[in-house]
Amino acid sequence: MKIHLHQTHQTIASFEDIRTYLYDIYTSKPSQGLHLFPESFLCGYPLMDLCLNYSFITSYQKHMQLISTWAKTLPKDENIIFLMGGIKYTLTSDHLPKKIENVIYLLTPGEELRTIYTKMLLPNYDIFDEKKYFDPGKTVGILNFNKKNIALMICEDMWPNASYELDPTTELKKTGLVFDLIINLSASPYDLSKQEKRIIRAKEISHFLKAPFFYVNRVGGEDEILFDGQSFAVNGSEILGKLNRFKKDFISIDLPAYEKSIYQNIDNDKVTTTWESLFVPNIITNSKKLPHIKPLTDQECLEAIDALGFGVNEYARKCGFSKFQVALSGGIDSCLVLTILKLHLTKTQTLEAIYMPSKFSGELSLDISKRLCQNLKIPFYILPIEDVKMTCKSLFIKHMHQDLQGLADENIQSRIRSMLLLARANQTNSIAINTSNKSEIAVGYSTIYGDSVGAISLLGDVYKSEVYMLAKYINKAHDNIIPLEVIQRPPTAELRDNQKDTDSLPPYDILDVILEGMLSYRLTAKQMIEMGLPPDDVLSVSKLYRNSEYKRAQFCPIIKIKPKSFGFGYRVPTSKDGTFYSDI
Amino acid sequence: MKIHLHQTHQTIASFEDIRTYLYDIYTSKPSQGLHLFPESFLCGYPLMDLCLNYSFITSYQKHMQLISTWAKTLPKDENIIFLMGGIKYTLTSDHLPKKIENVIYLLTPGEELRTIYTKMLLPNYDIFDEKKYFDPGKTVGILNFNKKNIALMICEDMWPNASYELDPTTELKKTGLVFDLIINLSASPYDLSKQEKRIIRAKEISHFLKAPFFYVNRVGGEDEILFDGQSFAVNGSEILGKLNRFKKDFISIDLPAYEKSIYQNIDNDKVTTTWESLFVPNIITNSKKLPHIKPLTDQECLEAIDALGFGVNEYARKCGFSKFQVALSGGIDSCLVLTILKLHLTKTQTLEAIYMPSKFSGELSLDISKRLCQNLKIPFYILPIEDVKMTCKSLFIKHMHQDLQGLADENIQSRIRSMLLLARANQTNSIAINTSNKSEIAVGYSTIYGDSVGAISLLGDVYKSEVYMLAKYINKAHDNIIPLEVIQRPPTAELRDNQKDTDSLPPYDILDVILEGMLSYRLTAKQMIEMGLPPDDVLSVSKLYRNSEYKRAQFCPIIKIKPKSFGFGYRVPTSKDGTFYSDI
Repeated sequence: MKIHLHQTHQTIASFEDIRTYLYDIYTSKPSQGLHLFPESFLCGYPLMDLCLNYSFITSYQKHMQLISTWAKTLPKDENIIFLMGGIKYTLTSDHLPKKIENVIYLLTPGEELRTIYTKMLLPNYDIFDEKKYFDPGKTVGILNFNKKNIALMICEDMWPNASYELDPTTELKKTGLVFDLIINLSASPYDLSKQEKRIIRAKEISHFLKAPFFYVNRVGGEDEILFDGQSFAVNGSEILGKLNRFKKDFISIDLPAYEKSIYQNIDNDKVTTTWESLFVPNIITNSKKLPHIKPLTDQECLEAIDALGFGVNEYARKCGFSKFQVALSGGIDSCLVLTILKLHLTKTQTLEAIYMPSKFSGELSLDISKRLCQNLKIPFYILPIEDVKMTCKSLFIKHMHQDLQGLADENIQSRIRSMLLLARANQTNSIAINTSNKSEIAVGYSTIYGDSVGAISLLGDVYKSEVYMLAKYINKAHDNIIPLEVIQRPPTAELRDNQKDTDSLPPYDILDVILEGMLSYRLTAKQMIEMGLPPDDVLSVSKLYRNSEYKRAQFCPIIKIKPKSFGFGYRVPTSKDGTFYSDI
Repeated sequence: MKIHLHQTHQTIASFEDIRTYLYDIYTSKPSQGLHLFPESFLCGYPLMDLCLNYSFITSYQKHMQLISTWAKTLPKDENIIFLMGGIKYTLTSDHLPKKIENVIYLLTPGEELRTIYTKMLLPNYDIFDEKKYFDPGKTVGILNFNKKNIALMICEDMWPNASYELDPTTELKKTGLVFDLIINLSASPYDLSKQEKRIIRAKEISHFLKAPFFYVNRVGGEDEILFDGQSFAVNGSEILGKLNRFKKDFISIDLPAYEKSIYQNIDNDKVTTTWESLFVPNIITNSKKLPHIKPLTDQECLEAIDALGFGVNEYARKCGFSKFQVALSGGIDSCLVLTILKLHLTKTQTLEAIYMPSKFSGELSLDISKRLCQNLKIPFYILPIEDVKMTCKSLFIKHMHQDLQGLADENIQSRIRSMLLLARANQTNSIAINTSNKSEIAVGYSTIYGDSVGAISLLGDVYKSEVYMLAKYINKAHDNIIPLEVIQRPPTAELRDNQKDTDSLPPYDILDVILEGMLSYRLTAKQMIEMGLPPDDVLSVSKLYRNSEYKRAQFCPIIKIKPKSFGFGYRVPTSKDGTFYSDI
């Protein structure tokens, strides 16, 4: 029996595209066997409040009716079925969603569409709000097709943890049935460590239930959340096939015959969980050195760059933009953003860079910015901000009888730049890409409505020390395309004379490890000091962090590539007494 | 027996203040009887991710230990108890929160603190994410004190709906016990319709369980969410006492003796629910007129103004600010914002207004702005933006060889204003208050990083037609303090010559009813057209609405005064195919 993994890439609620994908399979004679589609293929994921919206509900139900009608007209064929993720409504007489289930639809040619399984484990941590919208299934899913017993799972069903009452894998075992196949339809959000965990867990389940495990995941960038695809099939410890990341893809694999020797006897109680992994700080401690962030491998750098490029392109395409603006400062962050964008630029997209110097901008910054654009073959513009700044200052002297000084003087430079950048974006119908990194966002080292602006943030989930790792990786792979000086120079915001980031922040390798400890929610200030981190740094970073929630509250979407990121899954009140962060 | 309602007003995680409040009760001889404190009094609400943070957990547990130790040292007294809301942790050996419960703590003088009840119904809709953090209780709470049977509830326990498996009120009845008292400790978010619903529901429960119902609610502004207090006690249909709104307050009430005649026999199946009420559009339809938004009564206007003033003061105080900036445009929104701020200004706060005219600003706008500031006795500054704008335009002509025109020219004016406003805020260490209204935010009729900026939005949950209602109400109550011309003139953004809002939007009374239909999630474009609304308007508004999610995603916190608001409880993907909104 053939199993066909459809790693689809559809926009949320693009009902016509979704039907077209299905109908196209039937324009030529469809392959026999079992066709698998991702979780929520029929509607998109995550829908959030859309699934409560009656406009959405009526359109979705119309679409489902069209598919069902179409399926009924197909020539009967017992050797083909489609298993597709979607949602199922039970409405009250007032059209209120009484019950919404995250389900598997079975499409058999010549028959009406019907549901055969409801997702049992509803993730409700971090970016997930499934218990807000869905009701869980109570019983395991088993389908008999072609005389094979198929165990059915949807995404989280393979990731039990202590907060769930049931473990579907254990429940399947308890049925006493012999399974020929386990399938998992997923809409599994991406992070850098995810794919390894998926394969380990799939192998565990394959051994435990003694059957091959086929996993199909969707592709898509949904605002900040990426779905990477990377569908695969394993049999025991053997990998049968793997699909690409961040691309629509397809593979057909023969279901292997049962061979007892393939499977080890394992217990299902040592479970690779998801929720708890958010709380594991990615910090290496050993007695000889200060604790530090685990460096990215070359493989991880390449993958992160792929992810970021995919994320920005998805957002731009879905919002209807094909032109990008980047403000270059001569610093590493903006250089890296421009380079990543260029590496992913398609033929129909354009990219330009603007350098907006003030009197505090060094020669080196201009030189770096210009050379990078030459290397990348990107149009380079200069818009000096000094005249605008002087006009603003004169205005304040004349009308407020008070010059702009100190913070007001620093911030207005950053805001003039964002204003000019966005004027250029309006002028060319393009979007400005934010260049802040995760470390800056964490400590509020940015000007709100200044350098914090942008349609989407490329590096907002990348610590400053990782920004350097990505830049060095790109230089290794692309012949030092990023001018070396930007990697070597000390970071500076150039908002006053001789300013250095280290005037107000610890060195980035120390800052980042403190941040990783705090953002994992697991390390207290006291514990970090006991780990050997400088007490003054720990306390000053705690304070900067807790005082900058208001900036994060208005930040642009941040492409998520880590288990714990700022953005939708990070929910912290701004108004609070935050002194507990520095309680030692 | 006396019952003491402590309507407390504490900042989230302000552990010392919370203990001081408790200890102060004992500095003089405490009153005998039952002391009731709100839900989560001991920690604050909503905690969101804070309750997962080990820094928070350790500080909270230390604080709870201090209270428990203190309680044990108190002289034993059987006639006093405190019932206080808090959370209870069960941690794993790795300090992971295995289980968090939203509970009632019992403090008896001379004894250790202990928990006596776990909240059974965990709200998980709209702004609520309690299932993300808490585990529900499975059994009803009953306490015997002074030979009285007391039924225990926490907030949502009184609001069962179809999504919950149990109804605590029914479960209490099933015990067969005779109750002398029902108590509900709440942290119940405010909206304009909430208090009426609470009292109706309390009376229902009082009749059903045949006992007085005492309700104590917290006070606080937590970013966008307000807690209004308004604690009360009812006995059958009689109101025994009521506390103030938006203020710390206290009342002692004698528990009335049981009188059968007080209570009607009612069923508990006609339940006033919360979740579904989000879906009821606040629209009046009758055959003679076009559908329209239900107008605010004078009482509602007064209450809304109280709420908005309270909300902004809470946010400012907790963020450490006592100075406010408002950009006046000569339009109704900014005039109303300034007036509401002035009406709530405390002695230690200051407020100033800046009028930033361009060549498109009319004489009337200046005149209105100036007169309003005279009426309100607020410092009034003028910062003309024309010089800055011309400098920017010259810069583009010189360096980009292209003038700023059309949208780029309109937006830059708005962004120059926000830049100058924020420069002034930095200069004076004040916060800028946003002046956008709900209608503008819904259709994206604002410039991102321009007029959409601000620390917090006062009118972001108030439709434009309601802005007029509030202004007229204030004028009635305060001797036409707002210049009448601003209420009479047609709304304009003054970003180009002779611009009127109605150039790109339907009249506000039509716009607002379409928006209310859409934002309730309940009315489709088709249904609204069938209600008699102009098809072109319905379709154009649908499109503007769906294309402006990206602006809302970066909007400042909006003080919530309606059941359904933009902000934390509004979760809609930006990247999607939104054509279903206009599916007719």
